[in-house]
Amino acid sequence: MTYDPDNIFSKIIAGTIPSHKVYEDEDTLAFMDVMPQAPGHLLVIPKSGSRNLLDADPVTLSKLMPVVQKLAVAAKDAFDADGVFIAQFNEPAAGQTVFHLHFHVIPRHEGQPLKPHSGKMEDQAILADHAARIRAELTN
Amino acid sequence: MTYDPDNIFSKIIAGTIPSHKVYEDEDTLAFMDVMPQAPGHLLVIPKSGSRNLLDADPVTLSKLMPVVQKLAVAAKDAFDADGVFIAQFNEPAAGQTVFHLHFHVIPRHEGQPLKPHSGKMEDQAILADHAARIRAELTN
Repeated sequence: MTYDPDNIFSKIIAGTIPSHKVYEDEDTLAFMDVMPQAPGHLLVIPKSGSRNLLDADPVTLSKLMPVVQKLAVAAKDAFDADGVFIAQFNEPAAGQTVFHLHFHVIPRHEGQPLKPHSGKMEDQAILADHAARIRAELTN
Repeated sequence: MTYDPDNIFSKIIAGTIPSHKVYEDEDTLAFMDVMPQAPGHLLVIPKSGSRNLLDADPVTLSKLMPVVQKLAVAAKDAFDADGVFIAQFNEPAAGQTVFHLHFHVIPRHEGQPLKPHSGKMEDQAILADHAARIRAELTN
């Protein structure tokens, strides 16, 4: 399996497709999932291309995970959540649908089940508001 | 939330509770999940104590993730899997039940749903065999 740069996350990195960004540095980008399974559901991706975890540069992973952590804390606090679920899918059999490495960061509240990944896009104004809440938390 | 060293994974690190180990280095330990959701389901943990991702030392995470990757590749190959699911739960609302940071590495096969985390222990001989298959893959 090889990396195909013609994927939606590569275009989000390039800026040719818009996203609700919450964090960016030299190596990493984080933005809202457009089909959130819970409020605050975001994705953290490296800017360098790999299909998924299996073919990623280990150095990329070492830089990525402290950012995943930072965003998990910020998303939990921004949504006053009780917990955070981190998920990362490799290959279609595991649920991967976009073939650029990404970590899901999903705030969880006690007694509130995750919504299915239904294919229904969230309202853009809601995503913009949620991104703003997480960005505000990051600057605290 | 603080780290309580009186947890089962801390005892596995100390060697006072047995486990089916697949990998160990100075900072990291990996062993079979005793209630696997699919054959080859293993856990990767840092030896240094944190409750979960939220309070982990970022340096620990940077060292941990290349090991998670290595084990994901090995588990996929050992079980001729089609994909791998990586999951990490923070706090009970997200499904965390043992309060020492751990990453689940779960091989996935097309068309085979995950088993529920039922509370039923897998047969020890099966776990020993699965651990041996992954260890063999790591030395290839």
